[in-house]
Amino acid sequence: MTDNGMQAFFTPKSIAVVGASNNPDKPGSTIVENLFKIGFEGAIIPVNPKEEEVHGLKCFSGIDEIPEEVELLVLITPSGAIDEVMQQVDKRMASRNDIKGIICAAAGYGEINTEEGNRRERTLLDTANKWDIRVIGPNCIGVIDNANRVDTTFVETLMPEELRGEAGGLSFISQSGAVAASLLMWGASLASPLKFNKFLSIGNMGDVDFIDLLEYLEKDPVTEVIALYLEGYPQAGKLLKTMERIAKKKPVIVLKVGRSEAGAKAASSHTGSLAGEDVIYDNLFKQFGIIRVGTLEELMDTMQAFSIIPLPRGNQTFLLSQAGGPGIIGTDALSFEPQLSLAKISQTTKQKLKEELVPFATVCNPEGVADITASATVAHHVNSLEMVLEDINVDAVIFITVVPTFLPKVELGKQVKELLEKWKDQKPVFPVIMAGKWVEEVRTMIGQANYMTFETPERAVKVLGNMVDYYNFQNQARGGSH
Amino acid sequence: MTDNGMQAFFTPKSIAVVGASNNPDKPGSTIVENLFKIGFEGAIIPVNPKEEEVHGLKCFSGIDEIPEEVELLVLITPSGAIDEVMQQVDKRMASRNDIKGIICAAAGYGEINTEEGNRRERTLLDTANKWDIRVIGPNCIGVIDNANRVDTTFVETLMPEELRGEAGGLSFISQSGAVAASLLMWGASLASPLKFNKFLSIGNMGDVDFIDLLEYLEKDPVTEVIALYLEGYPQAGKLLKTMERIAKKKPVIVLKVGRSEAGAKAASSHTGSLAGEDVIYDNLFKQFGIIRVGTLEELMDTMQAFSIIPLPRGNQTFLLSQAGGPGIIGTDALSFEPQLSLAKISQTTKQKLKEELVPFATVCNPEGVADITASATVAHHVNSLEMVLEDINVDAVIFITVVPTFLPKVELGKQVKELLEKWKDQKPVFPVIMAGKWVEEVRTMIGQANYMTFETPERAVKVLGNMVDYYNFQNQARGGSH
Repeated sequence: MTDNGMQAFFTPKSIAVVGASNNPDKPGSTIVENLFKIGFEGAIIPVNPKEEEVHGLKCFSGIDEIPEEVELLVLITPSGAIDEVMQQVDKRMASRNDIKGIICAAAGYGEINTEEGNRRERTLLDTANKWDIRVIGPNCIGVIDNANRVDTTFVETLMPEELRGEAGGLSFISQSGAVAASLLMWGASLASPLKFNKFLSIGNMGDVDFIDLLEYLEKDPVTEVIALYLEGYPQAGKLLKTMERIAKKKPVIVLKVGRSEAGAKAASSHTGSLAGEDVIYDNLFKQFGIIRVGTLEELMDTMQAFSIIPLPRGNQTFLLSQAGGPGIIGTDALSFEPQLSLAKISQTTKQKLKEELVPFATVCNPEGVADITASATVAHHVNSLEMVLEDINVDAVIFITVVPTFLPKVELGKQVKELLEKWKDQKPVFPVIMAGKWVEEVRTMIGQANYMTFETPERAVKVLGNMVDYYNFQNQARGGSH
Repeated sequence: MTDNGMQAFFTPKSIAVVGASNNPDKPGSTIVENLFKIGFEGAIIPVNPKEEEVHGLKCFSGIDEIPEEVELLVLITPSGAIDEVMQQVDKRMASRNDIKGIICAAAGYGEINTEEGNRRERTLLDTANKWDIRVIGPNCIGVIDNANRVDTTFVETLMPEELRGEAGGLSFISQSGAVAASLLMWGASLASPLKFNKFLSIGNMGDVDFIDLLEYLEKDPVTEVIALYLEGYPQAGKLLKTMERIAKKKPVIVLKVGRSEAGAKAASSHTGSLAGEDVIYDNLFKQFGIIRVGTLEELMDTMQAFSIIPLPRGNQTFLLSQAGGPGIIGTDALSFEPQLSLAKISQTTKQKLKEELVPFATVCNPEGVADITASATVAHHVNSLEMVLEDINVDAVIFITVVPTFLPKVELGKQVKELLEKWKDQKPVFPVIMAGKWVEEVRTMIGQANYMTFETPERAVKVLGNMVDYYNFQNQARGGSH
């Protein structure tokens, strides 16, 4: 198969959930509900010998008893039952030969590092291998493909109902189920909920691994950005080569852990991965244009930004702030990203800004920074932002406002949103809208227009730095100059 | 006066609000409402020639017409009216001599850098000086003293009603109104709302400045921790000496900006402050045991932690995680704080942990780290946490959980909260409760018990690092060894 067998995970015609349950506290219930909620269009087939019906669907007592075609099997049944489950698979395949993929969400396999755990994992994989069935897991939280409305996770995604199944351009592969689950829940909780395209928790990588999925995502036309949480991989060279090839075409963001000796040891205890010498990874990531992030928060921000905000076409940054202190904080942060420069705007733009703003506004002292002052009206905000965006010397804008009590904030949100939409395909803006619940409505409004906002100037600047790094890499690769 | 005249800002018997308004969009309305909401027990006296009543209170047309005693005056009337306002003050003082303090919240003074702005500021200060009235501002957002139920800010504090006027041990001085406002609103929006003791926006520092307030807070028995947002100060040496003296007694946290050349220039445009050579500040902060934070987020986290979490009595840290990946992320983060060490717990504790947890839990590989696994029950969480806390080799615990769908999260929150309360005066725990809205209820529950939680392992570790730095400084100052 040209897709290496991956297609079964993303466009299955039918999904059998082994261990499906009516008990809302059980993962086997959440999986069925998630498939409903995302609007999966194929057949959902519960399997559980103890139930007649699950969530209103007819339930089968064994895999070999399902009359319909089964393309994808999701196993959430306890690992102790794996022998029986795989016997049923074996029996079914001998007569029907229909199953193409298994997602084994259950834990209790190789990762528990016992003879019995290892034996169970071998049973799962040997049977699957015999029938050319690809396996994701075991010990994972499942797979989401929003583009095709498939959700086999047992995590409450928390995604607002109207956004379920709405696919962004970002696909994510995680070697940790907990990291995956937390990014999923946290991402859905943001003012601009993070819309994954494909979301892949790969657990023990018993069969399907980083390289299988990276190769699939490389060619996947709806995946525009790829992010990884990586603990370690047995063939580091091969993985890095794959990432290198892809990074030339699509941004590849990675949170690689095991950076310290203790962290590497912890990674090894966790997934049995050898983390490898961190400095080697670090150098190669840089050389290959792979965006390495340092924290979970930076991973979240960077994933979102690459999938929402247009890539800057240069490093010339203008910082426009309604708030004095936060503007200085942002200016400091910019200077800590050596790849960024403060933009020198034209005299004409400076003049226009001075005419637009109150006389005591500070325009370009220092160059590349304007303080429109706390007295700025809604019009001052949006007009000055547009003036700066129109200046040919500006590649990106950090836009900061601490919305005062006396400013009509919904009107501000509306007008900023419209401006962001207008410029979305042209120049990036990194809007920092402060603070707390006071601006939740404004940030949600901008989120609904499929743009994002930041909580602090430093977080916005960090992400811009990552995007400019990637632009510079691509520009060099194309033989461009900078 | 021994209090240097500061007492008028914190325990005024009466407050006249000049520019008080009934229009809810005006700052002059918010100030009166905030005084109501916080439960100010003295007299609130609106002054506005255009109104008969403001928010149900009798309104006076001039300061000189108020029959009652006025101890504190809040000016929110436009700066253009300052001549008239100060004439009224002059007239009143000649006969009554009652006003002790002025908070000038209005802008349009020295900070706008015009002749007229400077003249207005001189008018304000000269008259005040003539009558020994201390002035905070102009161009500030006001003062809150939760301990004495005074709130003269024009910011919607967003504080849940039942927490208004509840004072923590943290007092904060800000040279930027926007930074102050954003920390106030953001802090109130957290799962553990940030309870300031005194909150001081000092604007242009026309009269009252950092040193006046630091000296007051130094002696203030209810202020246990002091934090500053600092752009620059004309007498840097004197300021640093004051901070040095205080840091020996109380933790002093500072976000000092103008770190870069451009940032320093921006600071100079903003408040006319000379930022000074950053490296000099940096060295002296270290030498004096002053906790310098690098970002707004770190300031927020560190302020909260110092005022809520007990100071660790050493650097021996145990990381207890229910989640593999986030545990490794935390372990990496710990290794980037060289002042922290992974604790070596006793064989007895190790044995107890092994007996408590599932067989495939990872205990102390590496030393100082335990992965209680995603299968951990509520009992596993709290029992293992307590076992680690009881070990004499442990000074602090980073406790991480990504609450799974199948765990009874309210019960988990309840039991963790009880354990945190029990250990609150003994050993610090830094609870990382993930992720997003999924755990909001749990984090709020812990917040209501006056403890705090963190969103990511990295943020918890960073704050622990700051606390251990301060412990080490104090320990050395006492001639202790570590």
